[in-house]
Amino acid sequence: MTLIPKSHPRAKSLLIREKLVSGFDNGLVAKEGLLAQGRGEAFDYLLGEKTNQAAKRAIKAAAAQLLQAQKPVISVNGNVAALCPKEIIRLSKQIKAKLEVNLFYTNEKRKQAIIKTLKKNGVKEILGTNSANSTKLPGIDSARRIVDKDGIFAADVVVVPLEDGDRTMALRNAGKTVITFDLNPLSRTSQTANITIVDNVTRAIELLISESKKLTKRNEKSLEKIISDFDNKKNLTENVIQIKNNLTRRARVA
Amino acid sequence: MTLIPKSHPRAKSLLIREKLVSGFDNGLVAKEGLLAQGRGEAFDYLLGEKTNQAAKRAIKAAAAQLLQAQKPVISVNGNVAALCPKEIIRLSKQIKAKLEVNLFYTNEKRKQAIIKTLKKNGVKEILGTNSANSTKLPGIDSARRIVDKDGIFAADVVVVPLEDGDRTMALRNAGKTVITFDLNPLSRTSQTANITIVDNVTRAIELLISESKKLTKRNEKSLEKIISDFDNKKNLTENVIQIKNNLTRRARVA
Repeated sequence: MTLIPKSHPRAKSLLIREKLVSGFDNGLVAKEGLLAQGRGEAFDYLLGEKTNQAAKRAIKAAAAQLLQAQKPVISVNGNVAALCPKEIIRLSKQIKAKLEVNLFYTNEKRKQAIIKTLKKNGVKEILGTNSANSTKLPGIDSARRIVDKDGIFAADVVVVPLEDGDRTMALRNAGKTVITFDLNPLSRTSQTANITIVDNVTRAIELLISESKKLTKRNEKSLEKIISDFDNKKNLTENVIQIKNNLTRRARVA
Repeated sequence: MTLIPKSHPRAKSLLIREKLVSGFDNGLVAKEGLLAQGRGEAFDYLLGEKTNQAAKRAIKAAAAQLLQAQKPVISVNGNVAALCPKEIIRLSKQIKAKLEVNLFYTNEKRKQAIIKTLKKNGVKEILGTNSANSTKLPGIDSARRIVDKDGIFAADVVVVPLEDGDRTMALRNAGKTVITFDLNPLSRTSQTANITIVDNVTRAIELLISESKKLTKRNEKSLEKIISDFDNKKNLTENVIQIKNNLTRRARVA
């Protein structure tokens, strides 16, 4: 139950925050996840708390990339499970991707809470849950390199919403195509991924689902054109410019 | 005990984060305090994680304002108690200000933890602890308006580090001169306060102490000159420009 009035100028942002805090109370989200959400809030505020044109182009490229993938996998962490469990499951069905629970701050209890939430939201199969089936990603320190043999390890395209820089780099080094959601266009994750959606995951995921639906009937060649037309560095620069323009506008208003 | 190597490019920021997380574990910091820290981290990152010239000017004006005050009070919340308890006590001694515990998210247990921390760090008297001595600040909703009759209520100058916009406004409406620390130069708190120090409180507080020491022997007229020469709106605009320049620089490097 929320007490935030709909009229509040930042009601949506506060509702997202409430979801995350409730995810923390339910054992899904780590303390570090609350801090990360705070960082995201600041960048979302600077981006104007809406999906911009650059993000829409990144979403289209991501949809094409996912439809073209042979073995797409979506990595799920605590913040994602708290913010948009239903949507992440719908996305996985739409693009026929596997889901893998993969935590930055490993914690068995938290992992179980995440699995429970995903199951409650209708998921059938979740990878990353059987330690006998786990293996190691090279080039990253021990606790964070564990992945599922049939999931991220075997994947050609990996969606890592709200990921950290080291792991994004390790995934790239392992030859994966990486799609990420990151509100900071300058972060290492943003700069390292193949496709960075600079948007709030709770807004962008709906658009990614509908875009994937829209592109389903496109042929291989058409999808490849969309992917090759997309320039991640250029897209990130556009987002930086967007933030700068918003700063100018807000500073004038204030 | 920290595991963060000194060589890490963002070691200082991570150490500050550790202090706050440990404050959370010790019951000083609210969940919302972790989120607020995250937002601060993002702005600090954009400000280059250092005290800029504009902040130094705001610190000088704040020192003059505090030395000139008749009844200065420093408001202490959970994040401040977790991040810099010793420094806030040293500041209060330097400028002969009272300390008042005043929480955005009221919680008796947390209040007691904060008082315990301040006492452990050598404080003698803390206001805001005796409910028989409390009164209400007008123009703000119930839970957050409680202040101490001999503290904030009677003060002419109030230091509110890491404050929210509504309360800053209520303090201004009650005729107080408000000095704040806020890393977001566009926040309502920043825009509403008389003097906004756009800097990380853990860096700025040391400078505020030394600046107060330096200005101790100045006469009334000289202090007033420093205060009247300071333009908060202009200072905030300079901070916005600083962020924009840093974005340009970082975007080029990335």
